[in-house]
Amino acid sequence: MASSAGPEIERLISLLSKLPGMGPRSARRATLALLKKRDQLMNPLAQAMAEAAERVRPCSNCGALDTRDPCAICSDPERDRTLICVVEEAGALWAMERVGAFRGRYHVLGGLLSALDGIGPDALKVSELVGRVGQGEVAEVILALPATVDGQTTAHYLTDRLAASGVAVTSLARGVPVGGELDWLDDGTIAQALRARRPA
Amino acid sequence: MASSAGPEIERLISLLSKLPGMGPRSARRATLALLKKRDQLMNPLAQAMAEAAERVRPCSNCGALDTRDPCAICSDPERDRTLICVVEEAGALWAMERVGAFRGRYHVLGGLLSALDGIGPDALKVSELVGRVGQGEVAEVILALPATVDGQTTAHYLTDRLAASGVAVTSLARGVPVGGELDWLDDGTIAQALRARRPA
Repeated sequence: MASSAGPEIERLISLLSKLPGMGPRSARRATLALLKKRDQLMNPLAQAMAEAAERVRPCSNCGALDTRDPCAICSDPERDRTLICVVEEAGALWAMERVGAFRGRYHVLGGLLSALDGIGPDALKVSELVGRVGQGEVAEVILALPATVDGQTTAHYLTDRLAASGVAVTSLARGVPVGGELDWLDDGTIAQALRARRPA
Repeated sequence: MASSAGPEIERLISLLSKLPGMGPRSARRATLALLKKRDQLMNPLAQAMAEAAERVRPCSNCGALDTRDPCAICSDPERDRTLICVVEEAGALWAMERVGAFRGRYHVLGGLLSALDGIGPDALKVSELVGRVGQGEVAEVILALPATVDGQTTAHYLTDRLAASGVAVTSLARGVPVGGELDWLDDGTIAQALRARRPA
C-alpha cells in the first residue's frame, strides 16, 4: 500500500480510511482532493476539526453535542419541558431536529442495550433519564429508538424502568413510510402496518 | 439542514461533505464518529491534514506529491532515467507504484486535454514533459493515461508533440483485465482485445 509519497501522505490516507463509509481507495481520492484544494478545503477542515475537538462537548443534561452546556435546546425557554424524546445517538437527534416536528427536549442514551456486545444499562445514560423524569416536570417520554432487535429491547427496558414514575411512555409509530410501495417493503413492516391500521 | 448543534459542527459537516464520495448524510456520520473518537481520530486527523497542507508539495521535476523536492523517486539513483511514465494525476502514480512493476521515473500531467471543459495543453505540464525529454537522457515515454475520450485525445496529442524528439512513445496495453469474464466486459474492450490478439 506504499504510495511512495512519504509518511505524511500515508498517515493522512490511513486516518481518513477509518471514517465510516471510507475505504483505502476513497481515502486516497479524498487525500488527492485535499492536496489539490489546500486553502479552500484542507486547511479549513483541519481547523474545523481541531476546533470541534476542543470545544464541542456532550450536554450535561441531555447528552446532545454542543459548544454550550446546557446545550441550545435545553436552555431554550420555548422548548416544552414536559416532553422528552429519547434517542440512541446525536445523529438521531439531528434527524428529529431537521424534521422540526418535535418541540420538547431530548435525552441521548449513547447507545442501545446489546446482549451480544455486552452493553448493559450502566453503559448507557439510563439512570440520568430516570433522574430527569423523577424531577416531576416531565409528562411524556417518547422513545425514538431504531426498529431493530437492540432498539426494541432497549425500548422495553426503558418502559419498565419508567413504569413507577407514572409518566406516559410512547414510541414512534410503525408503518408504511411516505412514498413507500408495498412491493418494496419488508414483510415485518407490512405486518406491523396492518396490525396498526386506522380508519381511512 | 440545521443540526441544532451550533455552527462548529455545521461547518465540519459542510466541509467533510465536499470530499469526493461524501454526501451530507455520510458527512454527518463521519462527524459523529470523529466526535466519539476525539483523541484517537479527530485530533490526529486535524494534525495530519495541517502538516500535509504545510509540507507536501508537487515535485518541481515530475509533479509527484512529496515533502522532498525533487521527490523520492526523482532523487532515487536506482530508478531508470531513460524511462518516463506519463500519468494524469498523483493517484495514478500511486497505483503504478503499488504494482511495483515500473522502475523508471514519472511525469504527472495534472489533468487531461478536454475540449468540453476548455482544458488546453497550457493548463497541463506538457511543455515540462517535452523539456525533460529534450535533455537527451530519455529513451522511451510510456503513456499510462485513462482509456477515455479525454485520455486518448491527450495520448494522441502527446505522441504528436514528442514525435520530433525521436524517443519511443508507447501506451499501456488494452485488453481483458485479469479475472475479467467476457460476459461482463464492455464491447469496446472486447473489440480492442480481439484486434490486439497474440499467439497463445
